[in-house]
Order: sequence, then structure tokens, then C-alpha cells
Amino acid sequence: MSEVTTTDLYEVTMALSYLREDMRGPATFSLFVRDLPPGRGFLVAAGLEPALDRLSRYRVGQADVEEFAAVLHRPVADLAPLQGLSFDGQVRAVPEGRIVFAGEPLLEVTAPLPQAQLVETALLMLLCHQTAVASKAARCMLAAAGRPLVDFSLRRTHGPEAGMQAARLCALVGFAGTSNVAAARRYGIPAAGTMAHSYIEAFASEEAAFRAFARTHPGPVTFLVDTYDTARGVATAARVLNDLGLGPECAIRLDSGELGAEARRARTALDAAGREDVRIIVSGGLDEYGVAALVREGAPIDAFAVGTKVGTAADAPYLDAAYKLVEYDARPMMKLSVSKVTAPGPKQVFRGPGLRDVVGLANEEPPAGTEPLLRPVMRGGLRTEPPAALSTARARFEADLAALPEEARRVDGPIAPVPAASMRLTALTAIVRHRLEEQAGTPRRPPG
Amino acid sequence: MSEVTTTDLYEVTMALSYLREDMRGPATFSLFVRDLPPGRGFLVAAGLEPALDRLSRYRVGQADVEEFAAVLHRPVADLAPLQGLSFDGQVRAVPEGRIVFAGEPLLEVTAPLPQAQLVETALLMLLCHQTAVASKAARCMLAAAGRPLVDFSLRRTHGPEAGMQAARLCALVGFAGTSNVAAARRYGIPAAGTMAHSYIEAFASEEAAFRAFARTHPGPVTFLVDTYDTARGVATAARVLNDLGLGPECAIRLDSGELGAEARRARTALDAAGREDVRIIVSGGLDEYGVAALVREGAPIDAFAVGTKVGTAADAPYLDAAYKLVEYDARPMMKLSVSKVTAPGPKQVFRGPGLRDVVGLANEEPPAGTEPLLRPVMRGGLRTEPPAALSTARARFEADLAALPEEARRVDGPIAPVPAASMRLTALTAIVRHRLEEQAGTPRRPPG
Repeated sequence: MSEVTTTDLYEVTMALSYLREDMRGPATFSLFVRDLPPGRGFLVAAGLEPALDRLSRYRVGQADVEEFAAVLHRPVADLAPLQGLSFDGQVRAVPEGRIVFAGEPLLEVTAPLPQAQLVETALLMLLCHQTAVASKAARCMLAAAGRPLVDFSLRRTHGPEAGMQAARLCALVGFAGTSNVAAARRYGIPAAGTMAHSYIEAFASEEAAFRAFARTHPGPVTFLVDTYDTARGVATAARVLNDLGLGPECAIRLDSGELGAEARRARTALDAAGREDVRIIVSGGLDEYGVAALVREGAPIDAFAVGTKVGTAADAPYLDAAYKLVEYDARPMMKLSVSKVTAPGPKQVFRGPGLRDVVGLANEEPPAGTEPLLRPVMRGGLRTEPPAALSTARARFEADLAALPEEARRVDGPIAPVPAASMRLTALTAIVRHRLEEQAGTPRRPPG
Repeated sequence: MSEVTTTDLYEVTMALSYLREDMRGPATFSLFVRDLPPGRGFLVAAGLEPALDRLSRYRVGQADVEEFAAVLHRPVADLAPLQGLSFDGQVRAVPEGRIVFAGEPLLEVTAPLPQAQLVETALLMLLCHQTAVASKAARCMLAAAGRPLVDFSLRRTHGPEAGMQAARLCALVGFAGTSNVAAARRYGIPAAGTMAHSYIEAFASEEAAFRAFARTHPGPVTFLVDTYDTARGVATAARVLNDLGLGPECAIRLDSGELGAEARRARTALDAAGREDVRIIVSGGLDEYGVAALVREGAPIDAFAVGTKVGTAADAPYLDAAYKLVEYDARPMMKLSVSKVTAPGPKQVFRGPGLRDVVGLANEEPPAGTEPLLRPVMRGGLRTEPPAALSTARARFEADLAALPEEARRVDGPIAPVPAASMRLTALTAIVRHRLEEQAGTPRRPPG
């Protein structure tokens, strides 16, 4: 397995054919999400940094050619035109952390046709999945309304790489920590986690477990209080904290039952024990809906741990994204398939105040007061700037989120803004459609 | 990032505490799925081979200890007890490919408590996600009713590793091929894929594209016919196939529109052109429901390509699985938390005819006519047998599937068998519950 052969076979068969036919002219492909999944008022662009890393390294080696030949049952010599091919094209893309909507390119590649085709699978895989997870995590941030969130998703993600990405994406949108040690270290995220129910059970009593934990781990502790009887667990935690004189950064964690009601009871008990300082953390199957409900009912919860449903983007684990040829050899392209019509030409997204976007052509003049969303990030196969820090992406997200209309921000029944098409894009679409229908000899609609 | 630090932090804080408290007695943890997701009548055990590989390699190195210390803001010396720790325990597990149900252990680990705890995150991550995807793919096999299926999921999976696993799991349940070159090569799966819409568009006409493809790729071809007008695409494909005298393994692919209706029209047109031999392959957002509907309506489709929804297990992208301490130092354990009660003791699943299962204790005599489902797969940290071939796992799946009751097999509204608990497990559960409630001083239910 190499990064080059982790691809759909058809990218290879197509690229080989382009090379044989000497079709090496510049092609522009546009990667965009056709429609937002239900329950999404916006997406958070993500996955660009890993995608650019991969493009930078892209090179078809001898071993790759041999793999291609083997799966095609062809002599290695037949695949020789691919050998040594690397990616030396241009990429314009929406930086990570920016909010985007349906129909807006997340990324456009311009490169010799075979190269631009070969990288399709990797770009879709990296950008779509990561944008899906970042968008889910962003909704949790909205739901938490300022209370800290921690990522506990690693054990449910689709493998270790997906777990690393989930931790990174949660931090990108503002999570306060992650349970994933490797991700904490690699991305500079605070690590969180203390004990599971198994820890409590392994001791003769809950109290013995709490005391042992405090012995091993001097400093602030978080005690898991719901292994047996939650009310008793809270009382035991308060007693141990007081006995050991453990200070103001301590917490208890609730992981089962009606979390709001349990938190209220726990708060009352902790306060009665003189421990107003002890924080309450909750976990267990939470996503933005669960968090929002707890915030709405005013539960005295200080932090939320979310995992499974965020790390897998459970209610929308994929995006309906496409990587479409929009221009080849200076000829704008589009597709007329039923229900999958695309717009031709290299594009730009012009963002106005309040995230009112216009999708236009890459070479048109930005409308007054707008900012172009896609930026040149790769030229001649090289990154135009060093990888952005996670904090930079987070700042972009926070700025866009602050400007996002209320109806797109809400957790229940969000309504996503619909970007407009520029006059020039609309005109080009009509022209290309007419040309294609003339070619096909079956104009099915008036070209206007 | 190492395999060891790709873990939830709490495994580390707990393991360190166990070591400090000299709690190194043998612990048994049981990994099981609490409830099946809606729309599942069974699960297909998967992920064991990669999980055992990981356990075999497990060793906490110096760099790992340094990472742990860094994220805990502790001196490296504090973490020293972990250094050099490897996994030398026993594992009993359900072999890959076997059908399992809710409440049945997929795997049980018996090892010194710190070791058994440290591997929790990795085991859950690898087994749950892979079992979820294999189970979704298995339902597609049922829906296809004997017609071949091909995996096209790579571009939507949650990263390259997840894509590799998806291809493997689809092959495990009987898919005929995958689009993923690296997976095809690694797992010995036939590779599939020819062209995308972009290929057609890059040429001056659909016909020119088909002819060019056939020039580059001698032998059977599959032409994608819906880039512009599907009826014309089919006619063009038939003409090119006939002109070039291309033989009996050729196919067309439909990727949009009403696939059943389009397939019928295409079949009629191909037959009229004398090409009864040309097969029809369909793709585009299919899962078991889409495939079953097309089979039900009798659409003349020869093969289905499924991707997105299978590779992400889209309607159930995670499983509600747990890794629970069931015995420590010869003392059976269980949890009493509200709605998360678990059963104590190391277990075995006794499978009778028709997949009538009884969950019992590992050390009880198998009921007559039953087969134990969990097998010893690791002893002293070493695998008891070499990794099973994918074909072996597929044969297990096919045998179990053949015995699965009809109501669990159906695509719409399946009903999963509910395993029974053995008398001895029921008795032990009552005893342990009573002991725990006595300890807590709050018996909440009669112990019977």
C-alpha cells in the first residue's frame, strides 16, 4: 500500500489513456458539496492541510506501476507512461476553518489532465470526511454556548487515522481538549481523561479507588461517580476530596442516567459538602442535540465530553461531494446527466457581509465589498505558504461563525444560506449547455 | 504518533495507578455490542486480525513514556513503571466472518490488569468500526440475491486506512471486487473500474472517448453511458463495441437517473443492437435498500457498485459497544449503573442449530449440540495460529448466513435473534448483584 495506489482504479485507467492520447493540456477540476446533509446549516472547510501534504509527496514510483500492472493483468511496460509522474499543478482552495455552503468549491485543481485526474480519489477522501466531522463538531460548539467541550471519540472512529483527524478537527473548531494522547501531542491539544468504570470496579470499594487514584496522580483529579449508585458516588467523591484537601481544579464525571437531573443532584450535594469549586463533567452518547438540551434546561454542567457521534459525524457520515472537470484546454465543461448538472469553468466564491456568497468565475472582478474565498495554496506542485497553525484555522472559523446568520446557526432545523450565481457564471452555463446540446443534436431546454 | 499513544489518556492514568498499587492480578475484559442498531438483524464479526496484529506488537517504549509524561505534565520518571510493558495475555474471540448478536462477547482479554486496561481503546476502535462496516456490506449481499457487488467506497471512507478496511470487509462477506488498487493488491481482491464522467467530457465526443479507451485498454471494457443523454450513450457504446468487434466480457455503467428504468431501456437497446452479451452495471448512492428495490423490480442489472453508504456504514456508523471488566483476581465483576447493567464473569457463546445462541460462562460445559463461538486466539501474547485467510472468514460467514433465520436476514425491518443466558450465568449475575448491593448498603431490587 502506498499513497499513490490508495486510489480508485479508474483514475489510473483514465490517466493512462490521456497519456496515450497525448491529452496533457491543463485541466481544472472543482471539488464541491452538492447539497448539505439534513440538519446542517453550514459546513466547516477542513482537510486541506493533509490533502496538500499528500499532493506535495505525490509521485508514481516503480512499485506503484507494478501494482497497477498487477491489478490490471497487464505487462508493466504498458503502464510505463505513468512512472515518475508527480503533481506539479496549481491548487486554489478555501482555507481550513472557513464556513462554506452547498455548491461552493472547496478546492480547485489546475494541472495537466492526467495529474489532475489521478489525485481525485485522495482529495475527495481527505476533504469530505474531514469537512463532515469538523461541521458536526462545530455544531456542538454552538450547542455548548461557551462551556468547554472535550473530544472522547477515538474508540469509535473509523480507525486510528480517523481518530487522529477527529481530535484535530474538534480542536480546530474550538474544543478544549481530547482524550487521544497521540493527537494531543501532535497537535498541541490539552489531553483529558482520568478513569473508567473498570478502574472503580477493580478496587474493593469506590472510596478505595478514588483514594488510590489521588495517590498516583497528585494535583487536580476527576472522579467518575456513577459506577454503582450515583448519589453515593458523589458523596464519596466529596468526602475523599475534602479528606485529602484536594483543591479547586477537581471535578466529578457523570456518564449515565438523566444527565441533567443527575448534575442538579450532584451540584446540590457538592455544594452542601462545601465544594462549590468542584466541577461537573458529563459524557455518554452526547452530540449537539444532547448538549443543547442540557444547556437549555440550565443543567449545572461545567464541561461536556462528546465522542462517538462527533468522531463519526454519525447523522451525516459522508458528504455528497463531487470532483468535476470544469475546464480542459481552455474549454469550459459541464455535465448534463439527470439531476447531476454542474456549472462550467474555474470558479471563485465572493463572500459579502453576513456570509452572503456569490459563486462566480475565477477570472471575474470581485463584486464590491466581497472577499474571494478560494486562495492560491499550491503553484507548480509546491505549497505557496507553510502549513497554517491550528490556531489560525480556529480564528478563521470563529470569525465566520460570528457573521453566520442566526437561522444557519441553530441546532434544530437550521436553514443554510444559498449562494447566488454571478451573472457571468450564469451566462457561461447557458452558453456551454447550448454548445453541448447542439453537439448532441437534442436541445432539451431553451439555452437561457 | 505511535500505536501505543493512539489511546485514550485514561487507559494510561488507570494503568499507572494499578501498577503503583501493585494490582497486577489477572483481569478479564469482555468486548460486546450492547444493542444492535436499528435496521440490523445480525452483525458480522470483523476486525480481529488487525486487532491481534496490534496486540502482538504492543510495547510501551521510551518515546511513548515521554509522550505520556508530556501530556500529563509530569516528570518522565513518574511514568517509568509503564516502560517496557507489552501485552502477554490471553485472548479468546469470535473468528472473523461469524455472525453475532447483541450481548455476545466478540472478544475477551485475560491479562494482568494494567495490560488488559491499556489495550481497551485500540480493541474497541478496530473491532467496532470493522464489524459495523462488514455488517452493512453483508446486508448488501443479501439484497443482491446472488448478483455480484463491487466496492466503490474509497473516496468517502474516513481516511485511507478506513478505505483499506472497507475493501477488505466487503471482500470478506463476498463482494466480487473493489475499486481500491492498494486493497486489491494487498488482499487479493479483483480490482474494478474504468472511467468517470470527466473522461468522457475531456474528449470531443462520447464516441471519441469510448474509442480512445478501447485503444488504450485492449480486452473487455466498461463504458460509462450517462454523461450527456443516456439513450444516446447506450447506442454509441453498442456501435463502438460492434465496430471494434469487442467481445463478450464488455459492459456499460449507469450512474444516474432511475436506475431500474434506465437499465430496462439500455437492455432493450443493447439487445436490439445484437449485444445480449453486454452486461449492465449500476452505481450511484446504492446500499442494501437501493439494491433490494432494483432486484425486486426485476431490473436487468448484472452487477451493483456500492460505495459511500457501505464504506461509512452510513445508517449505523458506530456500534454501541463496551469493553467491560468482568473478572479481576478471580472475583466476578459487573456494573450497576442505570441502563448500563452488565453481566459478570468470563463468558462463552454456545451456538446451537439455526444460530440459537446461549451466552454462558467460559468454564461451563457446552450444552449438547452446541458449538462454542469464542476460540483461543492468543496465549502469552502470541497468536495461537497464523492469521486466517480472507477466504476462510468468507466461508465462515457463508455458513452462518445459510443458517440465519429468515426474519433476521430480511433487508426491511429485520428481527435479530436474542441469545439466551445460561442458568449458570443467570445465577452468577444474581449473586454478584447481591454482593455489590450489600456492599453499597442499598439493595434496590430483589437479587433473583
